[in-house]
Amino acid sequence: MKRQHGMWALLALCVILLVVAPVAAADPSGEATIAENPGAALDFIWVLICGFLVMFMQAGFSMVETGFTRAKNAANIMMKNMMDFSIGALSYWAIGFAIMYGTMQGMDWLMGWSGFFLMGDAYDVTTVESWFFQMVFAATAATIVSGAVAERCKFSTYILASIAITAIIYPIYGHWIWGGGWLSGMGALDFAGSGVVHALGGWVALAGALLLGPRIGKYAKDGTPRAIPGHSVTLGVLGVFILWFGWYGFNCGSTLVGNDLRISVIAANTTLAAAAALVTAMILTWLWHGKPDVSMAGNGAIAGLVAITAGCAWVNPQSAVLIGIIGGILLVAGVWFLDWKLRVDDPVGAISVHGINGAWGLIALGLFADGTYGGVAGLLYGGADFFVVQVLSTVVNFAWAFGMGLILFGILKATIGIRVSEAEEIQGLDIGEHGMSAYPNFVVTEPAMEAE
Amino acid sequence: MKRQHGMWALLALCVILLVVAPVAAADPSGEATIAENPGAALDFIWVLICGFLVMFMQAGFSMVETGFTRAKNAANIMMKNMMDFSIGALSYWAIGFAIMYGTMQGMDWLMGWSGFFLMGDAYDVTTVESWFFQMVFAATAATIVSGAVAERCKFSTYILASIAITAIIYPIYGHWIWGGGWLSGMGALDFAGSGVVHALGGWVALAGALLLGPRIGKYAKDGTPRAIPGHSVTLGVLGVFILWFGWYGFNCGSTLVGNDLRISVIAANTTLAAAAALVTAMILTWLWHGKPDVSMAGNGAIAGLVAITAGCAWVNPQSAVLIGIIGGILLVAGVWFLDWKLRVDDPVGAISVHGINGAWGLIALGLFADGTYGGVAGLLYGGADFFVVQVLSTVVNFAWAFGMGLILFGILKATIGIRVSEAEEIQGLDIGEHGMSAYPNFVVTEPAMEAE
Amino acid sequence: MKRQHGMWALLALCVILLVVAPVAAADPSGEATIAENPGAALDFIWVLICGFLVMFMQAGFSMVETGFTRAKNAANIMMKNMMDFSIGALSYWAIGFAIMYGTMQGMDWLMGWSGFFLMGDAYDVTTVESWFFQMVFAATAATIVSGAVAERCKFSTYILASIAITAIIYPIYGHWIWGGGWLSGMGALDFAGSGVVHALGGWVALAGALLLGPRIGKYAKDGTPRAIPGHSVTLGVLGVFILWFGWYGFNCGSTLVGNDLRISVIAANTTLAAAAALVTAMILTWLWHGKPDVSMAGNGAIAGLVAITAGCAWVNPQSAVLIGIIGGILLVAGVWFLDWKLRVDDPVGAISVHGINGAWGLIALGLFADGTYGGVAGLLYGGADFFVVQVLSTVVNFAWAFGMGLILFGILKATIGIRVSEAEEIQGLDIGEHGMSAYPNFVVTEPAMEAE
Repeated sequence: MKRQHGMWALLALCVILLVVAPVAAADPSGEATIAENPGAALDFIWVLICGFLVMFMQAGFSMVETGFTRAKNAANIMMKNMMDFSIGALSYWAIGFAIMYGTMQGMDWLMGWSGFFLMGDAYDVTTVESWFFQMVFAATAATIVSGAVAERCKFSTYILASIAITAIIYPIYGHWIWGGGWLSGMGALDFAGSGVVHALGGWVALAGALLLGPRIGKYAKDGTPRAIPGHSVTLGVLGVFILWFGWYGFNCGSTLVGNDLRISVIAANTTLAAAAALVTAMILTWLWHGKPDVSMAGNGAIAGLVAITAGCAWVNPQSAVLIGIIGGILLVAGVWFLDWKLRVDDPVGAISVHGINGAWGLIALGLFADGTYGGVAGLLYGGADFFVVQVLSTVVNFAWAFGMGLILFGILKATIGIRVSEAEEIQGLDIGEHGMSAYPNFVVTEPAMEAE
Repeated sequence: MKRQHGMWALLALCVILLVVAPVAAADPSGEATIAENPGAALDFIWVLICGFLVMFMQAGFSMVETGFTRAKNAANIMMKNMMDFSIGALSYWAIGFAIMYGTMQGMDWLMGWSGFFLMGDAYDVTTVESWFFQMVFAATAATIVSGAVAERCKFSTYILASIAITAIIYPIYGHWIWGGGWLSGMGALDFAGSGVVHALGGWVALAGALLLGPRIGKYAKDGTPRAIPGHSVTLGVLGVFILWFGWYGFNCGSTLVGNDLRISVIAANTTLAAAAALVTAMILTWLWHGKPDVSMAGNGAIAGLVAITAGCAWVNPQSAVLIGIIGGILLVAGVWFLDWKLRVDDPVGAISVHGINGAWGLIALGLFADGTYGGVAGLLYGGADFFVVQVLSTVVNFAWAFGMGLILFGILKATIGIRVSEAEEIQGLDIGEHGMSAYPNFVVTEPAMEAE
Repeated sequence: MKRQHGMWALLALCVILLVVAPVAAADPSGEATIAENPGAALDFIWVLICGFLVMFMQAGFSMVETGFTRAKNAANIMMKNMMDFSIGALSYWAIGFAIMYGTMQGMDWLMGWSGFFLMGDAYDVTTVESWFFQMVFAATAATIVSGAVAERCKFSTYILASIAITAIIYPIYGHWIWGGGWLSGMGALDFAGSGVVHALGGWVALAGALLLGPRIGKYAKDGTPRAIPGHSVTLGVLGVFILWFGWYGFNCGSTLVGNDLRISVIAANTTLAAAAALVTAMILTWLWHGKPDVSMAGNGAIAGLVAITAGCAWVNPQSAVLIGIIGGILLVAGVWFLDWKLRVDDPVGAISVHGINGAWGLIALGLFADGTYGGVAGLLYGGADFFVVQVLSTVVNFAWAFGMGLILFGILKATIGIRVSEAEEIQGLDIGEHGMSAYPNFVVTEPAMEAE
């Protein structure tokens, strides 16, 4: 019962926060802002609605992750998804946003340092609008990790990882690209976050999956990887549809203003890349395994969405199709490479979907930007310098995210531990971590593994 | 076959309605309205899109309710959720809206009495816009009851309760706060309906659950409550995400106009309160039961959303966090109190989530409104009078909703009956009420109860 | 491995497309468009958000179809739904849009022929906006067929059918009504596509279901149809809610502009027709079978949505209720007629929902348009000529869609075949078509059929 003291301390902290906060600063009602810029209303409506859609992607991630893993871990995965969005929102409110978009005299190339807790000058309709849209992005980066560490990572460890990602790892890198930091100073671009959100999440996930090691039974004694089928293809694909739907907010809303008509091209590119990647992944599995694979097709759509995210505003529709096709190929190749060569066990393919395709998205932008919007031109349209910057940005993105991921999960492994016990893993994390079953009214079984 | 006459009578009634209706009244095309106020287009788009999101909350409620109850009642719960939205929309079209937002010479303090069936002057784009947004709120109030009476309430009874709530109970109270009635005359406020929608629904649900009595097996012979786990934690949590998503429409759309930039603060507050309540409920169950509870965490998010709904526009983000933390504590305490002390069986926790936290939302608004928006200031910011009004409003809300709920379910109990037979309850309402099984391709079982 | 050559050829084709494409044409950035018409921003936001909602209907269709069919075919149905949206988007990008909305000197009464691949002049923000909104409609028409041919149609065949529908069958008819073709020249109207989208999809589905023949076990030896219950009523009804939600985008977005206040009446009519049809279908099954049927009620809502789609902007709310009531009656009668009289096996009722109610929607518009919006008046309001045109349009719609459906599925049947083997059908298409099970962690069974 002594641990309840922690709750009281938390409560007291909040009351203090409340009392010390100056009530009004900047423009909390929005009256001054709209008087100065009547068009702000359209911007707010657009950005907030798009932000709602991005928030709904959390439901999509939860369905994809739970659908493509086993029934005995379903409740744990749903809990992780609820928790990482909540912890992410709170961390980004307390710390992350201040680091990513704050200002810091003389250190702006590295990080920001103002606007903590949305207090003081940050209590302003425009700043809060920005916070809301950026917060749902931060939470997306965090939740990507969930799938790759699924079915074996301790819940308590995962909480700490979510906090670290949304409070520090994501905001610092995000500042470099979107907050006025050094990469943006060099000209690196990332329209809606193939690199900032997806590759970052994917590379942190790679570090986590690497340090966790594969699930029990994933590899036969001779090292052959074995498929561990998910418990509900239906819910997994429902998740794909929800993600696709929410992604329109992710990409189109990243104009950050409402009166930019390029949003129609962004919506079209987003659709075409996803569709092309899905069809490509479907055809590839058909050619190689004799039958079109459903979960790979679903992951194909997400891979295409990730790949088009950086360049969605700057490429044309036919390039979007091509980016999607290559994204689908990279997905299938990446899953094979991780499974057979790196022997990293990624239950839902998150590393190939978000990491590899996120990196591809940054490169693709450097290749295909056609110069018709904002003057951004890639290698194929004469922008050789820009292409080089994008390649560099891709390398920096990997180095930062994978490096920080190794440090994060390394520290956690050396201290509180990152993996549940073997007995718990076999029984399922629903019982072990939460003392419950996700499906108590159904007979839950597990298909026998192929003999070792 | 004689009962088909009822259908023909209904059809004839509609034809008569159609024929007697004057075709045009007010501004059915909207041309005059937009000529007078060109900004109306932005208002319409904002309010309607937010209304769509609120409508989608019906899917969220259905998932939460079915996920957290047993498989043998799943089809019945889905049917109740479809039906209460449909019956609710029709009742609110025919009667409810006229009572809530109509006018009535000299009796306006009590209720309205004009605009039935959206005919005559009510056939007007602005009136119909208002109807649409208010209708989805009315249906929300109705559907809250569904969860609390789940797994034992007769379907036919539930239809009549839905009609009574959306045609009479909700509109009359709604008129007092939002339609210009006596509570609003005293200065009582409720931005998006912690009280009008949620507490009202929650207190009617309390009356229903009380008169129905607990489900068979809920209490051991010695009176100890037993957990009856729901059949799909996955779908239950999906419902939480859908509700959270739809809630942005619920709260932000309640500005009723599009050019109010405070919507960004509303969106942020909505997020932060839900996140804080989820984390609080998670931590509390962890401290008390040794493991973080998934369904309580999910209900925590909804509790936080309910609690911030009344004050979302008038408090600042740090207060939103505090309101959420207290909301999470109240949820856990409320579930315990109902289960162990009141011995009211509420299968999905709807009374604690909507009733108790709805009341808390009204009080919290009276405490934390910071005076930066519309001049509304709560007790902590010098508004002692306003706080007293909010407390009074909370009491009136309880008295009306719980009182009317007792009358409603009391009459139904004394006439057509409210509870299915013991045999039907044990077998499940899917078979009893609808002659079907929700999952005919699966083996559905029920875990043995702990011994009595 | 030679088949990989196909992939390389496809890739090469795309690279060629990319290289030959002139970079800029018309207004790809939107700067000229918004300079000329500052109100375009509101139009774009409105139409795109509504388009996102329509895209999300794909999730709804997938849930309805999978929920109301058997577990052994669930993965196949999800795959079909992902695939038809993707293939549909690509086909409509490459060909369909050019045929439906392009221009063609002297042949415009029949079809268009410009804007292929959104290249050249079609690379323009306004054209691409139009493409996006129309693409999600085309994909809807395609996906309707999926449900009617479920549980027995070959996956490869279904791909080809999806291409034919979105590239040719849908665009040509669409051109006649919405692209300036001969039916629109006669005055035929269809606001959001009861005929263009739903009846067209439904009648193609009728042809497919007819040529496929019924599922094994659907008819007893004496010809009595047997119900084959779906595997998850919960997911089926979730699909109904998602469709209903997305339908607001479908109907309200069909104004194609943002500053038309009639959208409130459209939203209200959409709600009321769905609600009335749901309640009607529920009451009818209650009267006839003694218990209210859940899946029929859910299909009732969709039937009401289909029926109001053509006239949603031109009728008043009380007519919407009446249209919904008749829609619900037509649904129940249609399902009975197809099952017992035509002996066409339509697993999810798609033909009655989309075909019959789509036709009813066109007629209902001709009857009930009240003249308050755009001067469109139906038979009951003095528009006898318009009514005749609508009847004619309904007949043409049936003749085209059913005729093309027979040709399409006839050719496919005579060449690659349209039906899986008997063994595969009994085992389930998940294994046969995709080599997997949708629910490997659950014991999947099938209730015994009534004796033959």
